[in-house]
Amino acid sequence: MKEKLTVIKVGGKIVEEDATLQQLLNDFAAIDGHKVLVHGGGRSATKIASQLGIESQMVNGRRITDAETLKVVTMVYGGLVNKSIVAGLQAKGVNALGLTGADMNVIRSIKRPVGEVDYGFVGDVEKVDASLLADLIHKGVVPIMAPLTHDGNGNILNTNADTIAGETAKALSELFDVTLIYCFEKKGVLRDQNDDNSVIPVITRPEFEAYVEQKVIQGGMIPKLENSFDAINAGVSQVVITLASAINSSEGTLIKK
Amino acid sequence: MKEKLTVIKVGGKIVEEDATLQQLLNDFAAIDGHKVLVHGGGRSATKIASQLGIESQMVNGRRITDAETLKVVTMVYGGLVNKSIVAGLQAKGVNALGLTGADMNVIRSIKRPVGEVDYGFVGDVEKVDASLLADLIHKGVVPIMAPLTHDGNGNILNTNADTIAGETAKALSELFDVTLIYCFEKKGVLRDQNDDNSVIPVITRPEFEAYVEQKVIQGGMIPKLENSFDAINAGVSQVVITLASAINSSEGTLIKK
Repeated sequence: MKEKLTVIKVGGKIVEEDATLQQLLNDFAAIDGHKVLVHGGGRSATKIASQLGIESQMVNGRRITDAETLKVVTMVYGGLVNKSIVAGLQAKGVNALGLTGADMNVIRSIKRPVGEVDYGFVGDVEKVDASLLADLIHKGVVPIMAPLTHDGNGNILNTNADTIAGETAKALSELFDVTLIYCFEKKGVLRDQNDDNSVIPVITRPEFEAYVEQKVIQGGMIPKLENSFDAINAGVSQVVITLASAINSSEGTLIKK
Repeated sequence: MKEKLTVIKVGGKIVEEDATLQQLLNDFAAIDGHKVLVHGGGRSATKIASQLGIESQMVNGRRITDAETLKVVTMVYGGLVNKSIVAGLQAKGVNALGLTGADMNVIRSIKRPVGEVDYGFVGDVEKVDASLLADLIHKGVVPIMAPLTHDGNGNILNTNADTIAGETAKALSELFDVTLIYCFEKKGVLRDQNDDNSVIPVITRPEFEAYVEQKVIQGGMIPKLENSFDAINAGVSQVVITLASAINSSEGTLIKK
């Protein structure tokens, strides 16, 4: 039987405010067994970029990453946010190791081809080195993954954190019994955006498609759910979308095939 | 007989300009055998801090690191500079892993006590985990170390890169036959600051003290040489101060007991 492993993806809003970050670090430290944390940091990137006089351009909720913006996200995701989490977890006895995809070549990606939109230095994940991650994890190391990958030609690429979490969970599911938890500042997938208690407890693929058609599910939740179904179909045992402070509970929205 | 290992410390000026960085990455990739790179990044930190409206205060060549400055150095050293080097080396077939002292608790430090000067969030190295680094190195991983450590209580601390290089070389000298190379934009320790060819080929401790008295050796070179003698006395086989583009040659200043 495979050992259990939990992959937590936490959104920028949680890790960028000190009070919610501390809560998250406590909750993450309390998770039993093997674990991996994938974090965002978009709000800090936008703020620092703005202070540096760099305008953040978003298309369909995704950041256009020109050369200057790439420097900002490399600083913010790979440095500020990642290392704050690592140092914070070390203080709680978690043997955290901050990683971008470039470190030990752990996630290789391909620069997104220019289509209708030129997203710039944005990477689509090509390969996650699960065996390398598994070696570290079996030694008690807890990988803390920044949303940055590399193309193998010397370029860092800005990469969606939900995708990194999904691809990492999928790759590790060959070696572990993986639970993937997307956590953020809401209680789960909501039936009514204005009612925090309207959590949909279980969603199947046909239900998801119906919800999208009815515009119950919209915006950034659509790619998050696409990643979730993708992960479930590729061997991840369980995918949950929930409140950051509920990662040790059984609350939230459970994704079913 | 111990295996050979080279610890290279490279100053900010080299890694912060694209042409000299590329040259350094080529030269570093060409070093045979086990190796570790320790980098600075002070000029970029000063530049980014200034763009963010944060004034850089230096005392005796050392940066006063208040809370805002700590964020900047965490971004610049741990993110921008470190990950650019890591991605660049991966493209040259070097299996680089970027580390701060917080990552896997590899370097623990103590916040410098407030004396005549309050340096702020600055760390003095307490312990380098040589056995952890050796495990990675034996697997073919090449640690790329940013000048940041942690205190184990959740705080990142800004830490002098020369000191990190010296302490890392010392710690690894129990397990390897270590050569420590401090490289920068000059050919070595100069007898005359205005004559690039006035390199002192060998310096012993008594000679160093005489040079300091005669003010031939001044400023930032003094702590660099103190670190060098400290390393030689603690078991490092060889310490050299040389030009960044000469790390594969036998040029520069050799430090002797």
